[in-house]
Amino acid sequence: MKILVAIDSFKGSATSKEINAAVSQGIKNLAPEVHIETLSVADGGEGTSAAFHENGQGKLMQINALDLFDRPVQANYCLIDGKTAVVEVAETAGIYYLNKEYESNQASSFGFGKMLHSIAIENPQIEKFLIGLGGSGINDAGIGMMQALGVSFKKSDGSEIGRGTTDIINITEIDDSGLDNVLKDKEIILLSDVKISLIGPNGATFVFGSQKGIEDLAKVDQALAHYAKKLYEKFGIDYSNTAGTGAAGGLGISFLHFFNSHFVSGGEYIMEKIGMEEKMRDVDLVITGEGKMDRQSAYGKLPTIITHLAKKQNKIVIAVVGDATEVHQDNYPTEIDLVLSLSRGPITLRESILQTKKLAEYTGEDIIRIMNLNSRLK
Amino acid sequence: MKILVAIDSFKGSATSKEINAAVSQGIKNLAPEVHIETLSVADGGEGTSAAFHENGQGKLMQINALDLFDRPVQANYCLIDGKTAVVEVAETAGIYYLNKEYESNQASSFGFGKMLHSIAIENPQIEKFLIGLGGSGINDAGIGMMQALGVSFKKSDGSEIGRGTTDIINITEIDDSGLDNVLKDKEIILLSDVKISLIGPNGATFVFGSQKGIEDLAKVDQALAHYAKKLYEKFGIDYSNTAGTGAAGGLGISFLHFFNSHFVSGGEYIMEKIGMEEKMRDVDLVITGEGKMDRQSAYGKLPTIITHLAKKQNKIVIAVVGDATEVHQDNYPTEIDLVLSLSRGPITLRESILQTKKLAEYTGEDIIRIMNLNSRLK
Repeated sequence: MKILVAIDSFKGSATSKEINAAVSQGIKNLAPEVHIETLSVADGGEGTSAAFHENGQGKLMQINALDLFDRPVQANYCLIDGKTAVVEVAETAGIYYLNKEYESNQASSFGFGKMLHSIAIENPQIEKFLIGLGGSGINDAGIGMMQALGVSFKKSDGSEIGRGTTDIINITEIDDSGLDNVLKDKEIILLSDVKISLIGPNGATFVFGSQKGIEDLAKVDQALAHYAKKLYEKFGIDYSNTAGTGAAGGLGISFLHFFNSHFVSGGEYIMEKIGMEEKMRDVDLVITGEGKMDRQSAYGKLPTIITHLAKKQNKIVIAVVGDATEVHQDNYPTEIDLVLSLSRGPITLRESILQTKKLAEYTGEDIIRIMNLNSRLK
Repeated sequence: MKILVAIDSFKGSATSKEINAAVSQGIKNLAPEVHIETLSVADGGEGTSAAFHENGQGKLMQINALDLFDRPVQANYCLIDGKTAVVEVAETAGIYYLNKEYESNQASSFGFGKMLHSIAIENPQIEKFLIGLGGSGINDAGIGMMQALGVSFKKSDGSEIGRGTTDIINITEIDDSGLDNVLKDKEIILLSDVKISLIGPNGATFVFGSQKGIEDLAKVDQALAHYAKKLYEKFGIDYSNTAGTGAAGGLGISFLHFFNSHFVSGGEYIMEKIGMEEKMRDVDLVITGEGKMDRQSAYGKLPTIITHLAKKQNKIVIAVVGDATEVHQDNYPTEIDLVLSLSRGPITLRESILQTKKLAEYTGEDIIRIMNLNSRLK
């Protein structure tokens, strides 16, 4: 028997590589003869650059950068053939950098802009940037990033607006005369894991603002609407309803206006680049999964994408999931043959996160028990 | 496909019949063509008389009785062919009758003795009593029961001891001259779900006393040792190390000394009487389970007994379990092919109990998904 294990990261508890390894260990415990292939996967969120370098594509690079409150951090990106950089917004502007010391309203994409600038300067041969938009803690629509790249956002008195969201509403003029041309000729592909737009009840702020610590959601939503209006006045185009502009706190809208960029489904794009379909060719079973499985309609969810590819080749698909509470009956993902939760009984979320790897190993064992039932059936 | 569903009650949340029905419903949701047989099962604990009358053996009878604090209750028992009565200690002395109003030390088997007396009087043709010992809230070694049947336990001043455990240590004389002969010629079979003995660190009090609300375990253990000594002085026999005397707060030791009685494994005995082996003959899959699955060594655990019978006929066995936290790797029950927990993600014990039936239905669906994998495997 051959098994492919390609499980998305369990956010906050295990990377794709770690969860793959744990499930594989369980399989080996009971069936050492099984041939196991693992693939690190991502959808534009956490683990996007790892999905390349862990699968043998590109080199992991380190760079000095600034986080979303301008504090120095070491950030990683992946460089493929010297020509393509895979960069995650979350590396410098990740939600895990938020803390009680700072106001969420001050969180800025400035550090991320600096990081892009540094990467482009250090590697002038780069032609393409793949930007992973997931997992950010910012909500400034990329204004900080553009400031880092030389654009000026002026208030009525001519002074520059401050970092974060508070001052966005005061922008009277966008002056891009100082825009650094370091990214000018690059292709920028925005890997989004969500399809939402910039503003409104289903936009960036109302959907993700609370988990980023924003309290007055309506006020910040209004600020982003003001920015979209100013961009429209300047460029004559309105991207505020473009799917994906709601990712990374609206960062994408700045990319669309100032650079040669476009959105793709992070999951689909990365699956193609790491050769997922080809890797499935010989296997009997595909194991995928994610931390929490929602109703299947969710956009770009990695297990759905992987399952879809597997079903084109008529493979059996089992999903390993931290929380499958919403997965049952009418909400069962159509194409997945079986969803297994890590929980083996009443357990708190915290305990479940702490024990993820052990529980994933047990679940790997259960998968072999399930496959063995087969040989026992008439 | 034919499936036999025979799951032990989930204590405090669902009877065997209810949990069987919920899992069966899940099976029917996805595979209406499957032939399902259900059997209510028990091991001498909760559901023992139901295991007979729900499977078409005997009639459910009601009787006025007293609970463990002498409060009036309606109690059930099962009468088979008019000659055999199946009576659960928990019907009058159940742990769920304990409450904050009363001291656990006052809980007494007196009401249960009265119940036996009433049943014997109402049905003089009864030849045999099957006594289900599980689920009791008492710890008085059956002294209350014997008082109800006419035995006197005297203190040094000649007065009768009070109800419960506090006065046991003061017994100086056991006077059975007044013992009612209503149970004299009856065979009494004690259906035990545990194998522990009366006293000591692995005896009735230290193992089960805390969950019955007893605080000073050593003191009560000592009281039971005193009772065993008094019984030895009177009858010249010591049953205090007999396996099973630790069940129902030591109730069995009084049965052994005063009546024609003996212990059996409740699970094995009931499985034989309801014809479990025969019912398995034609099925492809046996589904069993219980509320919480411990390490398999536990004595007389019903899923273990049912699995053992199933494996003699080489059947596939899946266990459905509320809490399978301890079931993994080295603790996995040797003969069970697969243990499925009801939990689909982080959940509190309370929520899990409240949702038992719904979750069991989902698990029934998962079983069909698992069986369907078979048809998809090469």
